[in-house]
Amino acid sequence: MAEEEKSMVESKEWYLASYAREGVPTSDHLKLRTLHLSLALHSIPHGHVAIQSLFLSIDPYLRSTFTATLDGLCLPQYQLNQVITAFGIGRVKGSKDNKYEEGDIVLIAYSPVAEYFVISSTEIISKVDTESGISLPEYLSSLGVAGFAAWVGIEVVGEAKTGSNVFISAACGAVGIIAGQLAKLKGCRVIGSTGSDQKVRVIKEEFGYDDGFNYNKETDFDAALSKYFPNGIDVYLDNVGGKMLEAVLNHVNKHARIALCGMISDYNKVWREREGPRNLLNMIGKEVRMEGYMVLSYFNRFGDFATEMEGYIKEGKVKSKHQINIGIETFLDCLCSLFSSSNVGKVLVQLHP
Amino acid sequence: MAEEEKSMVESKEWYLASYAREGVPTSDHLKLRTLHLSLALHSIPHGHVAIQSLFLSIDPYLRSTFTATLDGLCLPQYQLNQVITAFGIGRVKGSKDNKYEEGDIVLIAYSPVAEYFVISSTEIISKVDTESGISLPEYLSSLGVAGFAAWVGIEVVGEAKTGSNVFISAACGAVGIIAGQLAKLKGCRVIGSTGSDQKVRVIKEEFGYDDGFNYNKETDFDAALSKYFPNGIDVYLDNVGGKMLEAVLNHVNKHARIALCGMISDYNKVWREREGPRNLLNMIGKEVRMEGYMVLSYFNRFGDFATEMEGYIKEGKVKSKHQINIGIETFLDCLCSLFSSSNVGKVLVQLHP
Repeated sequence: MAEEEKSMVESKEWYLASYAREGVPTSDHLKLRTLHLSLALHSIPHGHVAIQSLFLSIDPYLRSTFTATLDGLCLPQYQLNQVITAFGIGRVKGSKDNKYEEGDIVLIAYSPVAEYFVISSTEIISKVDTESGISLPEYLSSLGVAGFAAWVGIEVVGEAKTGSNVFISAACGAVGIIAGQLAKLKGCRVIGSTGSDQKVRVIKEEFGYDDGFNYNKETDFDAALSKYFPNGIDVYLDNVGGKMLEAVLNHVNKHARIALCGMISDYNKVWREREGPRNLLNMIGKEVRMEGYMVLSYFNRFGDFATEMEGYIKEGKVKSKHQINIGIETFLDCLCSLFSSSNVGKVLVQLHP
Repeated sequence: MAEEEKSMVESKEWYLASYAREGVPTSDHLKLRTLHLSLALHSIPHGHVAIQSLFLSIDPYLRSTFTATLDGLCLPQYQLNQVITAFGIGRVKGSKDNKYEEGDIVLIAYSPVAEYFVISSTEIISKVDTESGISLPEYLSSLGVAGFAAWVGIEVVGEAKTGSNVFISAACGAVGIIAGQLAKLKGCRVIGSTGSDQKVRVIKEEFGYDDGFNYNKETDFDAALSKYFPNGIDVYLDNVGGKMLEAVLNHVNKHARIALCGMISDYNKVWREREGPRNLLNMIGKEVRMEGYMVLSYFNRFGDFATEMEGYIKEGKVKSKHQINIGIETFLDCLCSLFSSSNVGKVLVQLHP
């Protein structure tokens, strides 16, 4: 009984209190609650593990899981009162699966946004090799969903080649900083758009972009693209949608590829209020291919990606940038920061630092 | 001199009198004029042929060549006073190239919209085999640009497969009637949209469409597509753009392909006045590929296409429908008919019947 008491933990977690059909979610929609949880071995079901959260990945797609209706990204919607989940890293505190033991560090695709939790071990993607010299946050950025999305967008869907003129929107975001570096490694000319002068400097000075522009300052996107792409655009990695996509379609070269990775300008609007590009006809004359993708569908290529990316990281050819927020209480603010363009690089929540 | 007089012909031709930036072109923009032309051998330059026009193909893309600015289809624009050209069939009346002789029937990609003309023999695509049992209009419809556009859209870009749910807009047009038959031959379920109840009957009764709807009657496209595609859309051959494309994007299946062949709803508007689909985000969740194409880029596949299509025509598996208008005077009305949805099948002008 004393043992039982010792293994009890207090765990805070975020859950869906009400659906957010439009706009940036607030504390009306997402709320924090405290649970008391036993991590004692006898209370862990067979084939399950008890996990202490270490890092959570904060990604824009999360916004699309609170609207109550299947829209756009076609992601399953949370039920009311259900705990939110995210890509995460945790430490095994107790295990009823002999593949895992206490102290293992593991990657979890649908990690509850909670300080502690018990889940089926089948939810674990892999153990993290803590001797690799690669830091834990890196596994959620360059080696995580963001890095993989960048790789699929540039290498697979976008088919960037030596000399390609590549444009990347949300260039200073988690996907953008990796995508720009991958395109440079392929010998492309790479231009990015981002939301501040400071972030333009970051993509150029830290991540090797040839140039970039602040879309809040150069608000005539057509003029900006004329200036930065005198020879037109061959590959566009779209993370924003809306007016920027329309402008891009006025500057595409013959047989350009547009890889639709995300459309952050659309996530907070119901679809009838979004702005559609009025110049899709350009796709015919220029024979453009536009293709949406979800990284899950490319999971059979994850091994190729991870091998390539680990090599780049160890050789110092790909760098990451993390905006680490301490404590589970910061989750909602972190999520909202994605929509105010106030973040640089990969936004993470760190628990139990 | 008497010989010279005998060889003189009066030839009417259509030319561009003023640019038509928006709207359906009128007799202010396209005008007819009469020339006097010598077909005498000594007046034909070396490597040239004198041609008597027999049939001209009237295609929607023509609209995009009168606007003065490169837009959408990126087609070269006519100069003022320049004679209009179209895909055509003519009879050689005199030849200064020993590959051709008087009486040959030839296919010409950029045939002047004129009763008679003299052109370089390099403009000739091929001689027509008049013993093939295939009628001349067929070479401008199922075996011409329209048939090839249908084939590229269904087979190459759209990748229709046995069991695919295929949607075709402007289904009763020159491309639509051929595309529907090709998709049926591949074992697809095929639904078309068109502008009248009579044309819905035509696509079903004459061209084997499984079903179809009149977009002027079923004006809630979303509801119509829900009804006709209970299992969603796998392939969309888009000939219209605009609101129909937006509705389609609400009904696409995972990994659907959208082959952009034409956007007739857009040709008469400047691009800022067009309607863009507000739901492109659906392309990410459903991982849709949308691709524009121009048949010229697939010319290396024309042989494969022609062999396949000639086989189908001779076996009676693909049928055509021609709306033949007599006399060069009808050219402008024929062109306008494409935009009023008053045509059925392939619109042709026949000269010297």
